[in-house]
Amino acid sequence: MNSDNQKNGEIKCSTNEVSDNSKKGIIHNGVLIEDTFAEAFDAWIASILITASKRDLAETAAVSAIGYGTSIIGCGAEAGIADYVIPQMSPDGRPGVTVLLVHPDKKQLKEQVIDRIAECILTAPTTAVFNGLPNAPERIPIKIHYFGDGFEYQTNVRDRNVWAIPIMGGEFLIEEEIGIVKGVAGGNFFVMGNSQMAALTAAQAAVEAILSLDETICSFPGGVVSSGSKVGSLKYKFMKATTNHLFCPTLKDTLPDSLVPEGVRAIYEIVIDGTSYGIVKQAIHDGIHAACSIDGIVKISAGNYGGKLGPHKFYLRDMI
Amino acid sequence: MNSDNQKNGEIKCSTNEVSDNSKKGIIHNGVLIEDTFAEAFDAWIASILITASKRDLAETAAVSAIGYGTSIIGCGAEAGIADYVIPQMSPDGRPGVTVLLVHPDKKQLKEQVIDRIAECILTAPTTAVFNGLPNAPERIPIKIHYFGDGFEYQTNVRDRNVWAIPIMGGEFLIEEEIGIVKGVAGGNFFVMGNSQMAALTAAQAAVEAILSLDETICSFPGGVVSSGSKVGSLKYKFMKATTNHLFCPTLKDTLPDSLVPEGVRAIYEIVIDGTSYGIVKQAIHDGIHAACSIDGIVKISAGNYGGKLGPHKFYLRDMI
Amino acid sequence: MNSDNQKNGEIKCSTNEVSDNSKKGIIHNGVLIEDTFAEAFDAWIASILITASKRDLAETAAVSAIGYGTSIIGCGAEAGIADYVIPQMSPDGRPGVTVLLVHPDKKQLKEQVIDRIAECILTAPTTAVFNGLPNAPERIPIKIHYFGDGFEYQTNVRDRNVWAIPIMGGEFLIEEEIGIVKGVAGGNFFVMGNSQMAALTAAQAAVEAILSLDETICSFPGGVVSSGSKVGSLKYKFMKATTNHLFCPTLKDTLPDSLVPEGVRAIYEIVIDGTSYGIVKQAIHDGIHAACSIDGIVKISAGNYGGKLGPHKFYLRDMI
Amino acid sequence: MNSDNQKNGEIKCSTNEVSDNSKKGIIHNGVLIEDTFAEAFDAWIASILITASKRDLAETAAVSAIGYGTSIIGCGAEAGIADYVIPQMSPDGRPGVTVLLVHPDKKQLKEQVIDRIAECILTAPTTAVFNGLPNAPERIPIKIHYFGDGFEYQTNVRDRNVWAIPIMGGEFLIEEEIGIVKGVAGGNFFVMGNSQMAALTAAQAAVEAILSLDETICSFPGGVVSSGSKVGSLKYKFMKATTNHLFCPTLKDTLPDSLVPEGVRAIYEIVIDGTSYGIVKQAIHDGIHAACSIDGIVKISAGNYGGKLGPHKFYLRDMI
Repeated sequence: MNSDNQKNGEIKCSTNEVSDNSKKGIIHNGVLIEDTFAEAFDAWIASILITASKRDLAETAAVSAIGYGTSIIGCGAEAGIADYVIPQMSPDGRPGVTVLLVHPDKKQLKEQVIDRIAECILTAPTTAVFNGLPNAPERIPIKIHYFGDGFEYQTNVRDRNVWAIPIMGGEFLIEEEIGIVKGVAGGNFFVMGNSQMAALTAAQAAVEAILSLDETICSFPGGVVSSGSKVGSLKYKFMKATTNHLFCPTLKDTLPDSLVPEGVRAIYEIVIDGTSYGIVKQAIHDGIHAACSIDGIVKISAGNYGGKLGPHKFYLRDMI
Repeated sequence: MNSDNQKNGEIKCSTNEVSDNSKKGIIHNGVLIEDTFAEAFDAWIASILITASKRDLAETAAVSAIGYGTSIIGCGAEAGIADYVIPQMSPDGRPGVTVLLVHPDKKQLKEQVIDRIAECILTAPTTAVFNGLPNAPERIPIKIHYFGDGFEYQTNVRDRNVWAIPIMGGEFLIEEEIGIVKGVAGGNFFVMGNSQMAALTAAQAAVEAILSLDETICSFPGGVVSSGSKVGSLKYKFMKATTNHLFCPTLKDTLPDSLVPEGVRAIYEIVIDGTSYGIVKQAIHDGIHAACSIDGIVKISAGNYGGKLGPHKFYLRDMI
Repeated sequence: MNSDNQKNGEIKCSTNEVSDNSKKGIIHNGVLIEDTFAEAFDAWIASILITASKRDLAETAAVSAIGYGTSIIGCGAEAGIADYVIPQMSPDGRPGVTVLLVHPDKKQLKEQVIDRIAECILTAPTTAVFNGLPNAPERIPIKIHYFGDGFEYQTNVRDRNVWAIPIMGGEFLIEEEIGIVKGVAGGNFFVMGNSQMAALTAAQAAVEAILSLDETICSFPGGVVSSGSKVGSLKYKFMKATTNHLFCPTLKDTLPDSLVPEGVRAIYEIVIDGTSYGIVKQAIHDGIHAACSIDGIVKISAGNYGGKLGPHKFYLRDMI
Repeated sequence: MNSDNQKNGEIKCSTNEVSDNSKKGIIHNGVLIEDTFAEAFDAWIASILITASKRDLAETAAVSAIGYGTSIIGCGAEAGIADYVIPQMSPDGRPGVTVLLVHPDKKQLKEQVIDRIAECILTAPTTAVFNGLPNAPERIPIKIHYFGDGFEYQTNVRDRNVWAIPIMGGEFLIEEEIGIVKGVAGGNFFVMGNSQMAALTAAQAAVEAILSLDETICSFPGGVVSSGSKVGSLKYKFMKATTNHLFCPTLKDTLPDSLVPEGVRAIYEIVIDGTSYGIVKQAIHDGIHAACSIDGIVKISAGNYGGKLGPHKFYLRDMI
C-alpha cells in the first residue's frame, strides 16, 4: 500500500497503470489491481423471504437455513443472506430477512428449498415464508402445507395468497411457490494483505459493501474463503480439490513459481452469487473499493480457469 | 401462572401436588408441571473444538458448521454450539467454540464431521480444529490433511499433535482424530404460555440455561421448536410426519380431544442432545426452572411415545 | 386481544369504535387504542454521523457515545442511534452509524456533543465524524482539532471539508461543525400486555419499526422504558419523580383508582425524539402498528400532562 | 514479527533478550516486548450485578449504564462490563452481567452509581440489581427504593435482602447497598502493528482475554484506545491533553524524535481498571500474550509518567 492509505478516512484515489510484466495492472489507492478477470458460471437461484415477530427471530431462522451451504462441491446448495427488509416494506408488516439458495441443477435446488424450509424455517418461532422474487417468471412449488394434515387453509396476507398451517407455536404462513431465476455463481476476487488481519478485515469490509446490495450473497463463513483451492492434486490422485499452493504465503519461500507477491502474508477470497450478471459485477466493484480502503492491502486479483469453467467474465480493470 | 409469578425477580418457589385427573402434576412457582416423562434415544456424538483469532471468528465458523442441522429427519446430522472456551483454557491460547454433531449411525456421523469441517471450518478465516473430547475412548479419523497436497506437516500445539496445512489465509491446524461418545438425543419438554411471546421467551430462557452447561446442545433454530410434529398423518398417507394437531392452540376450539390447556396460546418444544443421560437430565432440570421464572407460563409437559422410541426416560416430577 | 391476533402472520385489521366510557377508543386488530394523546415538547437535536472501517466499529463508537443518555432528567443528553448508513451512501465510502443527541438547551447540547465526541468517538478505533444534518441552517462548532496540537491540517473527503488529526491509531477525520435542528422530544405511547413478555416483545417490535425510520431515536435502554414515572411523590417530598403507581400492575388490586386494565400484567412505554413533528408522528404510527402485531396486547395508551408540558400533541386516533 | 508468527495457530514461544539500546527488551513470539513499565493509580470501584429475564436484556441495561464512561477526564466515571453470570450461579437464577464503575473520589463514585442505576438500569426491562461485591467491607447506600413512593417493600431473594419497587413493567428488585473496594486504575499497554488492522485485531484479542477474567474492565469503546494522549500541549496552552504526537505513525517521517518503530502503522492502547493490583497484572499478562498471537505485531510497550502519576508499576518483563 502507499502511505496515503494509512489514513483512516482516506478516500482520495490515485490511479496509475503498471506495465511491469510481473505485476501488470492498475494502481488504485495504493493497491495493485491485477489485469485479470474472474470467471463465473450459470446457476439457478431461489429467493426466500422470511418474516418474524422481531428481526432477530427472522435472522435466527435464516442463519439456520443457510448453514452448511458454502459450496456445492460439498453442500446441498450455496446459501446466504441477501437482504434485510424493514417492517414498513415487508409483505406482512413484520421485519424480514431474504435468503438465496443457489444450485446449477434446478431439481436439486428445489429439493434444497423444500428441505431447508421444512427443517429450519417452519421449525423456527414466529416465522412466515414469502416468495422473495414475486416477479420471477419461473417458480417452484413448495407444498409444505401438507404438514398441516388437513387442518391447513388458504388465506390472504395483503396481496399475497398463503397457506395457514396450524402449529404448536401458533400458525405458520407460507406462499405455495418460490420464484427462481437463472443467475450467476462464482464471481470472485482475491484480497492480499501485508498481515493476516489487514487482508481479513479488508475482505470483511468488502463483504459488508456487497451485502448492502440486494440479491447477492457470499456463501462462505462470514462471506470470506480462507482456503481457496485448485482442481485436483499434485500428489493425491483421489482428491478432487486441494490447497491452491501457488497462493499459499507460507510456501512462498520454497516454491519458485509461487504467485504470492512480496510482503503478502495472507490471501482471502470473496465468492459472490447473484441473480444477474449486472448485480454480481456491481458487487465485485463495490467489494474491491471497500477492500482498498483498508490499510495494508497490497494487491487485488481474481480466479479464473482461462475461460473454461463458465461463460461469465468480470475484468478487474473495469472495476476501477 | 399465579400472581407471584408477575414479579420480575421472583424466585420464591411454591410447590404443590395436583391430583385433579385432568391436569395431574405438581404446581411449581405457579406453573403446572405435568406428571409425564420425556423419552430419548441413543446417538453418537462428536465434539469439535474450533479456535480462532477472535471469538467472533470461531463463532462464525461454528454457526456455518452447525447450520441445516436441526433434526436427522431431514438433515445430515443434529448440530449445535455446546460451549465457549476462553483463551486461557483453550488448546492454543485463542478463544474457542465447541460444537457437537449428533447421529445415531456412526458411519453417517463420520461423513458429516468430515464434510462440515471441510466446507465450513477449513474455509473460515483463522480457524484451527481440536478434538473436543480428548478423553473419549473412541475416535474418528478426519484425514483432512490431504487437502495440503503434500505440503502439510505434523507439529505440536502445546500438548496436541496437529497437521499444519498451508492455505491461502495462512495455515490451518487440525488434530487428526475427533472423539465420539454414545450420548442421548431427543430429551425434551414443552413450554405452554398464555401468549406467544410468554411461551417463546420462557423457551429462550430455558435454552440459555441449558447452553450454560457444557456438552449439551439444542439443535433447532435458536434452540426452540415451533412446529412439533406427530409421526404419520391422519389424512396424507405419503407424509412421514405432520403437525401435532392435538397441541395446536388455533385448533383447540374445533378439536374435542385437544390437549391444549385453557388459556394457552402457544406451545414451544425444547429438544436436547447431550453426551450422557446425566447431562441431559441436568439440562431438562435447569431449562424447566428457567422457563418457570417467566411470567405467563401455564404448564410444562414433555413428549414421549409410551416408551417405544428409546430407552431413556426423564420424569418431569424429578426435575422439581 | 382477539383470537385473530394469535396467528403468526396476522395482518387483517378489524377496526371498531368503542363507546363504553370506561375504555373509550378504537379496537384495532383486537387491541383497544385509547382515545387520548401523547404530549411532547421542543428540543434541540444534533446529528453525528460516525463512519469506520467496518460497521461494528462504527457501532461500538456509537453505543459508547449514546450511553448514559436515557433522559435529561438525570443524564447530560438524550441519545440514540437513528440510522445505519451503507458504505455506498456514506461521505467517505465506509459504513456509518448516525446518532442523535437531544437537549432543550442549546448550550448544554453543544457541551454534550463535544464531550461525547471527544471521550467516546475520537477514542474509538478507525472512526471519522461527519455532520449528520448537512442541510441544517444552524450548526455548532466542535473544534476538536486542537487535540492535534498543531499537527492537524484541513483536507477534503469528497465533498466534505474535514480536519485530519494525527492520532496513535492513524488519523482522525472530523468536520468542524455539526448541524442542529429544533425537533420534538417526548413523543410516546404505552403498550399493555397480558404477560410481561407479550408487552415487552410488542414494545421491542415497535422500536424496530421506529428505528427503521431515519431521524428518530428511542433513548431508553433497548428503546423501552420499564419504569414510567409521575412528577413528584405522594409520600416523599424530596423526590422529583416517582413510580407511576396508577399504572403499576402489581398494585392494581390494592388501588381502587388503578388505571391498569383487567388482565394486564406489564406496561412498557416507548419514548421518541425526532427531528420534526412529522417524523415523530410517523414513528408513533409505525410503532403502534408493529406492537399490535404481537399476540397478547390488550391496550395502547399514551402519556400527557393535559397539555401543560409541551406544545405538541399526537392523538392516537389519528394513528389507525 | 517473525515468520513463525504468520501461522494461524502459532503457539511456539521463542524468547530472547534484546540489548540494542534503541529497542531494549525481550523478543517474545517474534514481538519486541519493550523493557518499560505501565503506571497506575488508586481508585474506588463499585460492582453492580444486573440480572434480567434473558442475557440480552441484562446486557442492554449494562451497555446503557456503562456508556459515556471511558475516562474520568471527561466522563462521570470509568465503566465497563466485567463479567457474565450464568443463571445457575446468579442470585436470582436469571442470567446476569456485572459492571464496574470506577472513580478515585468516593463521593463522586456514589453519585454515579445512583444516577446510572436510576437512569439506565431501573428503566431497563425485567432487570434486578444486586451487590456485585457482597464481601466488600465498605458499601454505599443506593436508596433508590424511594422511587416506589411508599408502595415499595422489603423481601428476600434467596440469601439477598432486597427492596421490591412496583413499576409499570412489573417489579424492580434491588439490594440497598453496593459494595466498593479500593482498586487499581490505568493499567495499560500499547500494541504496535505493521498495519492498522493487525494492531487493532491484536488489541481486540487482548481485550477478549482480559474480559475472560472477572473484576477487570477496559472502559474505552470496545476496550481499545485509538487516540492516546499526552498531558498538556506544545502549542495550545488551553488544552489539558493533546495527541501523543511522538507515537503518531503519520508524523514519524516529520518528527526526528518520533517513538514510532520502523514499519509500524498504528498503535492502540489498552487501559485496564481492576479490583486489585494482582488482577490488573494478570490482565496485562493475558492481554499481551493474546495480542502477540496475532500476525503483524511489531512491538508491545506501555505508558508511564516516570512514576509520578500513581503508586502502581507493572513491568512488562514480568509478563513474559
